Amino acid sequence: MSIVLYELRGANDERYSLFSWRTRMALLHKGLGCEIETVLMHDKEAIAFSGGKTVPVLRDGETVLRDSWAIAEHLERTYPERPSLFGDPAGHALTHFLNFWADRSLVPLLAPMIAADIHERADPADQGFFRSYFEGFLKAPLEAHRSKRDATLPVFRRALEPARASLKLRPYLAGETPAYADYILFSLLQWARIASPFQLLEPSDSVAAWFERMLDLYEGYGRAHPPASAQA
Amino acid sequence: MSIVLYELRGANDERYSLFSWRTRMALLHKGLGCEIETVLMHDKEAIAFSGGKTVPVLRDGETVLRDSWAIAEHLERTYPERPSLFGDPAGHALTHFLNFWADRSLVPLLAPMIAADIHERADPADQGFFRSYFEGFLKAPLEAHRSKRDATLPVFRRALEPARASLKLRPYLAGETPAYADYILFSLLQWARIASPFQLLEPSDSVAAWFERMLDLYEGYGRAHPPASAQA
Repeated sequence: MSIVLYELRGANDERYSLFSWRTRMALLHKGLGCEIETVLMHDKEAIAFSGGKTVPVLRDGETVLRDSWAIAEHLERTYPERPSLFGDPAGHALTHFLNFWADRSLVPLLAPMIAADIHERADPADQGFFRSYFEGFLKAPLEAHRSKRDATLPVFRRALEPARASLKLRPYLAGETPAYADYILFSLLQWARIASPFQLLEPSDSVAAWFERMLDLYEGYGRAHPPASAQA
Repeated sequence: MSIVLYELRGANDERYSLFSWRTRMALLHKGLGCEIETVLMHDKEAIAFSGGKTVPVLRDGETVLRDSWAIAEHLERTYPERPSLFGDPAGHALTHFLNFWADRSLVPLLAPMIAADIHERADPADQGFFRSYFEGFLKAPLEAHRSKRDATLPVFRRALEPARASLKLRPYLAGETPAYADYILFSLLQWARIASPFQLLEPSDSVAAWFERMLDLYEGYGRAHPPASAQA
């Protein structure tokens, strides 16, 4: 098999990596199989061949890519005969807009709520690195952010309002069928689902109903990864 | 001419109506001329034929529509041989997502900063209606919101980050050429430009540079409406 995805593993082999979920779903959308190689977060040597320090990294034959958006564009360009991730040029540009919306408007609200929970699931060898990396970013102890999450939650839910409104009108953000726009938002909620028992959404939320549909895609690929709430 | 757009006029015939700008630009994009009929905000009788209480209202032959998004969908459906407002189905769904983003994440930040300025430009016959409508919505006197706008401004600018990031990479939100996604965000800034002298964007902002390009479209149609800062 010529495609290899490098992504993180947790202490019990949990696969919660936020951005790697975008790539996993993009590969499934394109009907492309892949081998998965797991790495630890602190072990930068393991992915030094990519020229970067973060997963996902994709090796596709002779080509090595990092950054989930660059990987998605590579897959779209390289496998144009397979189902499109973006649609036409307007869909491509607007999917990129949605990628920025997720990363710049949602992740900064979501990460502090769940970082302490992720830390507890990180491999013991990664915990020191994880704490110092995220505490540098979040400017406070992980547990301090966790203790305030009930106050952050309504802000996060409000920030989801554009998706909520859209998903009341159509089954997927990209319309009648899912596409990369859906995988972007899915990756955030799947990250949280696998790494944290904290309930982010009301069950009656149209975003929650959509997330269940997303977990069912590709023969329940996402659902096969157990949620943190069900882990031992 | 068979298309008539009903929109608001200010005290000196200013045309700042937020949602009407989306329709104006959509008509230009489709190369469709229209007659414009102006109405006052409190005069619900004038647009009662539409079944609603807000502009824009569009009369296209025998068809009457209200709500800017419904009007855009009507134009796309009725004039499919003219340049597309949305692109393919994914572009259509994602443009609707962006419409919700603008209306639910940006307008609630922008409106309180400029409502007192709009009020000063409203027709005297509209000012009482305008004040009671917006103060009901904003839960405080218009001037109280205006006096706090220096604190709201950085939040608004941060909320624009997905557009800012996207517009650093491509000339328009919809890609190489403008489309309805661009007209949505344009309508907010044009509303503010015509009705308020408050400076919303740093000149170095990629959103500011894009807004200048938007003002140039269609032979400078948007720019021909003078900014509040230049009004007598």
